[in-house]
Amino acid sequence: MTALLPEGFRDALPPFADSEAAAEAAVLRVAASYGYERAAPPLAEFAEGLASRLKAGGLTDAVRFVDPISQQTLAIRPDLTAQIARIAATRMGHHPRPVRLSYAGEVLKLRGGQLAPARQRRQIGAELIGLDSVVAAQEIVGIAVEALSAAGAGGVSIDFTLPDLVEVLAGGPLPVAADRVAMLRDRLDAKDAGAVAAIAPDYLPLIEAAGPFATAMQRLRALDVAGALASRLDGLETIAAGIGGDVTLTLDPTERHGFEFQSWLGFSLFVSGAQREVGRGGTYTVVRDDGSEEAATGFSLYADALVAGAPRPERRRLFLPFGTPPGDGAALRAQGWVTVAALDADDTPGAQLATHIWQGGGVQPV
Amino acid sequence: MTALLPEGFRDALPPFADSEAAAEAAVLRVAASYGYERAAPPLAEFAEGLASRLKAGGLTDAVRFVDPISQQTLAIRPDLTAQIARIAATRMGHHPRPVRLSYAGEVLKLRGGQLAPARQRRQIGAELIGLDSVVAAQEIVGIAVEALSAAGAGGVSIDFTLPDLVEVLAGGPLPVAADRVAMLRDRLDAKDAGAVAAIAPDYLPLIEAAGPFATAMQRLRALDVAGALASRLDGLETIAAGIGGDVTLTLDPTERHGFEFQSWLGFSLFVSGAQREVGRGGTYTVVRDDGSEEAATGFSLYADALVAGAPRPERRRLFLPFGTPPGDGAALRAQGWVTVAALDADDTPGAQLATHIWQGGGVQPV
Repeated sequence: MTALLPEGFRDALPPFADSEAAAEAAVLRVAASYGYERAAPPLAEFAEGLASRLKAGGLTDAVRFVDPISQQTLAIRPDLTAQIARIAATRMGHHPRPVRLSYAGEVLKLRGGQLAPARQRRQIGAELIGLDSVVAAQEIVGIAVEALSAAGAGGVSIDFTLPDLVEVLAGGPLPVAADRVAMLRDRLDAKDAGAVAAIAPDYLPLIEAAGPFATAMQRLRALDVAGALASRLDGLETIAAGIGGDVTLTLDPTERHGFEFQSWLGFSLFVSGAQREVGRGGTYTVVRDDGSEEAATGFSLYADALVAGAPRPERRRLFLPFGTPPGDGAALRAQGWVTVAALDADDTPGAQLATHIWQGGGVQPV
Repeated sequence: MTALLPEGFRDALPPFADSEAAAEAAVLRVAASYGYERAAPPLAEFAEGLASRLKAGGLTDAVRFVDPISQQTLAIRPDLTAQIARIAATRMGHHPRPVRLSYAGEVLKLRGGQLAPARQRRQIGAELIGLDSVVAAQEIVGIAVEALSAAGAGGVSIDFTLPDLVEVLAGGPLPVAADRVAMLRDRLDAKDAGAVAAIAPDYLPLIEAAGPFATAMQRLRALDVAGALASRLDGLETIAAGIGGDVTLTLDPTERHGFEFQSWLGFSLFVSGAQREVGRGGTYTVVRDDGSEEAATGFSLYADALVAGAPRPERRRLFLPFGTPPGDGAALRAQGWVTVAALDADDTPGAQLATHIWQGGGVQPV
């Protein structure tokens, strides 16, 4: 009998588990206020189906098992976005576009990453299926920012990226052989100037074009003499202009990690106190059953990351001495108190982490 | 590429998924108001550890997979109670008793049952670890009833049972050979009078002792001439007396299915409109690391069952025509409206299932 958990798994305990749940509820409340209704796909699906729904998305590192009923391989979802895409494309395929959906659920990976060893996380998000326009992205980015603030996060910053930038340039003004594009993208993502110079020296300035939004944007504009990026850059500037002034904006045009299936826009969300990004979003393409494609925009947040940097939440608990009439407790809870009733005569406010005690018909601090 | 899900799995879609989430939040809000703080154990654990924590609890029908990191077998939890017991016994082992914990999470089974084919459910509950007294059970039953009402359920009824009844009688006034007790329990649970008569005819009246609470209690009292059940029956009567008058109470003393690991008290929760029980609870025994045992009381609810019988929820959605100033939307959301913004000029209130439209500075019904 062991109390140990497998590597990459954890128990969330009070009062932190309560904070994570409260942060999640706040995020979903904001999404709901913009018309994003809940969808809750199952933990497990046919592995083959789960993998096929996102263009360029793969089903790497999912936990799989053989279903004794269907004799097929099922996978536990490593990500919820593909399932939301499936629902929008199939069961809600007849709904007028755009479809707005929100969700919260566990995702599981067979292995954790080096930087992110967790194998289970709770993914919370909102997806707008049917549109990836600038206006659509404005709505999604705006909801993400408002959700972070509602969840109590401060010091929000957004790092934008242009996931298909290299493909656009390579297929236009700065040609690169098709078989070298993936390598170039990878080396740009790693900011490996030597390798980029060897593959396609024209792309070197992109490494320099990362940083504060306005500066990075200027450098990209200067690079884009042929105007191949003009619509993307105009769109990005419109989105940035719509974001409130207390959000820090940066731009890393060649960031690729985590944006493998995004199209023209990607963004990472940061908050003060959190060591890593707390979420991510962007535009992407959903594959429908008939093989046709549909644009989409969305974001995901992770409650654990969001709460990790927050101060330890304060408790307010009112101790009800043994024998307190039930009506007293009910009245106090109706006033908003968390009551903790002594269930035998030996129980104490200290044992129950109570901050207050119900005594002589009044609330006293402990 | 298939839209089909494996048998026993389902998508929850709007507006039902929203209802399930709202019911869950209501249940957890009630538990929190009684001092039950959240714990969130992981989806997967070492299979061996997960199985060992509940006395008489087994790990049947769990999804298992080999962990590539530890090379050990992990199991996806088929139930959350064992994990809460583990947390209370280990990481919160030093906390004064009782420990009050609440939770909500997915549970997964490799196979569904005949009556309950679902292989994934969302289990919501509250556990009081360290006590299984009548007062403890009163608190738990009271919270369960209040939670059902907060979740919008009507016509609540509670069916009590006495899970260890046969063991108590067989070890005392109505002796039965130890190797026949399990069979007797099983046949009593099935209300199989012929088989019960063949094994131990003294137990036949127990089959008749099921029904409305007061009548069933009278019959049990009449049976219990030796007084072996007196403390249990007194306790049950006290618990029943503390429950509000609009709850229907029944007693099925030999019901065993679903109460395999409960001790002296078990109960099933029903609400009008739901075809099956919506939850279950009782007293049980937790095994600590040093092999010592600890009493506990708790209940679990299933949001899907709770919501299944409810009427289709009504939507209230306010359509914001294309180009509505962002400040208007923010003000309307602050008033409590769910706004759905047109993201292009062609979008319509009908397409967005809107019930109202923002027009000329006022809210109009569609």
